[in-house]
Amino acid sequence: MATRRKFLADCGMFAGSAGFSYLALNRLSWSGPEKKPGKKSPMSLSFRPYELHLRHVFTLASGSRSVTPAMLTEIRFEDTVGYGEASMPPYLGESVESVTGFLKKVDLSHFDSPFFVEEIVAYIDSLAPGNHAAKASVDIALHDLVGKLMNQPWYRIWGLDPRKTPNTSFTIGIDTAEVVKEKVREAAPFRILKVKLGQKNDREMIETVRSQTDKPLCVDVNQGWTDKKMALEMIHWLKEQGVVFVEQPMPKESVDDIAWLTANSPLPVIADEAIQTAADFSKIQGAYSGINVKLMKCGGMHAAYTMISMARAMNMKVMIGCMTETSCAVSAAAQLSPLADWADLDGNLLINNDLFDGIKIMDGKIMLNELPGIGITKK
Amino acid sequence: MATRRKFLADCGMFAGSAGFSYLALNRLSWSGPEKKPGKKSPMSLSFRPYELHLRHVFTLASGSRSVTPAMLTEIRFEDTVGYGEASMPPYLGESVESVTGFLKKVDLSHFDSPFFVEEIVAYIDSLAPGNHAAKASVDIALHDLVGKLMNQPWYRIWGLDPRKTPNTSFTIGIDTAEVVKEKVREAAPFRILKVKLGQKNDREMIETVRSQTDKPLCVDVNQGWTDKKMALEMIHWLKEQGVVFVEQPMPKESVDDIAWLTANSPLPVIADEAIQTAADFSKIQGAYSGINVKLMKCGGMHAAYTMISMARAMNMKVMIGCMTETSCAVSAAAQLSPLADWADLDGNLLINNDLFDGIKIMDGKIMLNELPGIGITKK
Repeated sequence: MATRRKFLADCGMFAGSAGFSYLALNRLSWSGPEKKPGKKSPMSLSFRPYELHLRHVFTLASGSRSVTPAMLTEIRFEDTVGYGEASMPPYLGESVESVTGFLKKVDLSHFDSPFFVEEIVAYIDSLAPGNHAAKASVDIALHDLVGKLMNQPWYRIWGLDPRKTPNTSFTIGIDTAEVVKEKVREAAPFRILKVKLGQKNDREMIETVRSQTDKPLCVDVNQGWTDKKMALEMIHWLKEQGVVFVEQPMPKESVDDIAWLTANSPLPVIADEAIQTAADFSKIQGAYSGINVKLMKCGGMHAAYTMISMARAMNMKVMIGCMTETSCAVSAAAQLSPLADWADLDGNLLINNDLFDGIKIMDGKIMLNELPGIGITKK
Repeated sequence: MATRRKFLADCGMFAGSAGFSYLALNRLSWSGPEKKPGKKSPMSLSFRPYELHLRHVFTLASGSRSVTPAMLTEIRFEDTVGYGEASMPPYLGESVESVTGFLKKVDLSHFDSPFFVEEIVAYIDSLAPGNHAAKASVDIALHDLVGKLMNQPWYRIWGLDPRKTPNTSFTIGIDTAEVVKEKVREAAPFRILKVKLGQKNDREMIETVRSQTDKPLCVDVNQGWTDKKMALEMIHWLKEQGVVFVEQPMPKESVDDIAWLTANSPLPVIADEAIQTAADFSKIQGAYSGINVKLMKCGGMHAAYTMISMARAMNMKVMIGCMTETSCAVSAAAQLSPLADWADLDGNLLINNDLFDGIKIMDGKIMLNELPGIGITKK
């Protein structure tokens, strides 16, 4: 507690003396980067922590969780404001503290125009290694701002047909048969379900889902399988069960085993944990059929666009995913979705305190709107 | 002659009965793709051949040439027209005939909006393999049109700082010492010269240039060296002569030799003939320090942007080059130049019948303008 309070004092935020809580965070005022004397930027960045409240308690082997910390960002230029967001699920290693520390370093006074996206993004990336969610929170706000200044949604700037969005999957987490069945029923509006596997009861999970629906499924193993022959056998069985692709079946370090698996697999094998940024392509080349791109993993929309372009040039499949996020980051990712074969953009549907209106899901399909930037308005 | 006349009749162009000539081509009226009954497109493509007149006769081992065939394209959408161009130097295998044949296949009625650049470009690419100049002529016109509809120059749509353009090199071809000296004097406004090597008199060429100037040089060997050890020795000598990089030193097929050369070279080794499109990256990975991207080689601005993004993600150097072209295709390439380490965009300076005003070279540096699209106006 003392450390956290010290951190809050350091970054100029006050959380009240009578017991700090995440809820208090949601009422904290906006902060900005440290002021550098003698420089004036036409852009100003501000940010504040926000706590995402999950509709359902999230159960993991390590414990359960009902909130995800996030950081909301704004970049202001004259009368226009771009919105961004970082989402920091604890297992990814970023936190309110680390994102605040990163954002305090950002000095946009190096740039006299928000239109220099290429250079601004390169500058943000150069500030520190890692910190991809923090970087994404600036990148998204910048893209929202620039799209608004151009009066164009990003799918149009990228030359994409908004009607070509994929269906989004809805995730069914590992749980008891009863809860799984209930989740599948809840998922009625979706046309494809993503089932989390990688435990001992994988077949049972699929059979439970299949007892409720004959929709196409995809599975996310989260590195859970360790034996390549068992993995291949499982994939053959999954194909018979109507599964269309398998995400990260084995540990990311097992590149040779995964390459063997992909070469023999009747289903596409998608890299998730194995690829964060474009620089990782050399590590996974030839080992996977495709990649799962997430803004919080790669550092934002610019990096995601590059990764998707590279994957397509290499004849790899593309999935676009997200974390638990508000409609801000989800709508930003959705701008890219016409380039993706599959999407898993249900993060905003998992929280009950979304601050934005953005993309909608209609009959399972991502619906982009005509709003400039990333397509959101504040609620 | 009969074949050419038949071709002209086929594509609805009339070249006069008394002796066809390239000059006549320049007066030919605009053609369009074959009409498909029952489909209506909001976009219309038209094209006409144009003959680029070289300021200086171009001497090659195979003979000399004073013209380069080109094709001018236009895509019209409501009241807006985008301009494009294909340049077909004979050694690249495309011609007025082949480009006409390709463009006649293009049916933009598949698309109800010019903003779907991604899909339109993919469709154009799918029409036939190769034909990269023909594809570029549609891609450039489409980008010019879309930029005009968005009222933004492409460097801004791509988020680039127009002040970050590189200097362009000016090419000194293989010639007699007297002509080389004269060309170097002509090149006074340029800050970097590109010297063509790959003949027996390579050292003499460099010494002749060096007798006139101490400007930085780059050299283009056009696959001319065959012995890797000799090549490495030559590169060491070139470095002492103030050369900053070497383009395509050995035949593109000699990948292992080039990889060895690059690993040992004190100068960056750039791939030109070895890479046409993004699909070629797998062939050259690890073998070169960088790539030379040309719109006529890769199929246009969209493909070039992807290739440059990929090269940068792979920590490779980027050069942007051109053919003999009007200011149309050169200005299109220049939109990308803030992403390049080096540029060789002198193609429009080599002709005396440019039809467009576009980018300018000031004190050797590429100067982008504020015009939307690719930054050109008709003269």
